[in-house]
Amino acid sequence: MRARVTVMLKDGVLDPQGRAIGHALCNLGFAGVGEVRAGKVIELELTAADPDAARLQAEEMARRLLANMVIERFSVEIAQ
Amino acid sequence: MRARVTVMLKDGVLDPQGRAIGHALCNLGFAGVGEVRAGKVIELELTAADPDAARLQAEEMARRLLANMVIERFSVEIAQ
Repeated sequence: MRARVTVMLKDGVLDPQGRAIGHALCNLGFAGVGEVRAGKVIELELTAADPDAARLQAEEMARRLLANMVIERFSVEIAQ
Repeated sequence: MRARVTVMLKDGVLDPQGRAIGHALCNLGFAGVGEVRAGKVIELELTAADPDAARLQAEEMARRLLANMVIERFSVEIAQ
């Protein structure tokens, strides 16, 4: 079973990487670009038996390792 | 309109970050973890009028700046 954990900085936390990407897009001539936020995504192959178990395991992984819960939030998607 | 660009290393390209995460998860006691791949996600606020225009713009941004098409692949999701 495949789990995808997406980790983004919480709203309100300054995101210099996202801001740099936004500036670079402007410099390349892209118009109409508002806020840009950058984050990371981790795709995991899990042997958990069912989607609920996989989700619980991925959420535990995110809390313990993948995300810094002080400044980041995460979401989990499960695909079979 | 909000676009999310997900950039991952192509299959077959060595992913040391993903491998390091996999090892760390094993060391933390998580069992049943197979391949781990790490990537990045960029969320963009776009003023494009309709979802198709936003998707085209985000794809162009990915090709020109956000992804290295030699070793990375990207996908675009549009949310209103």
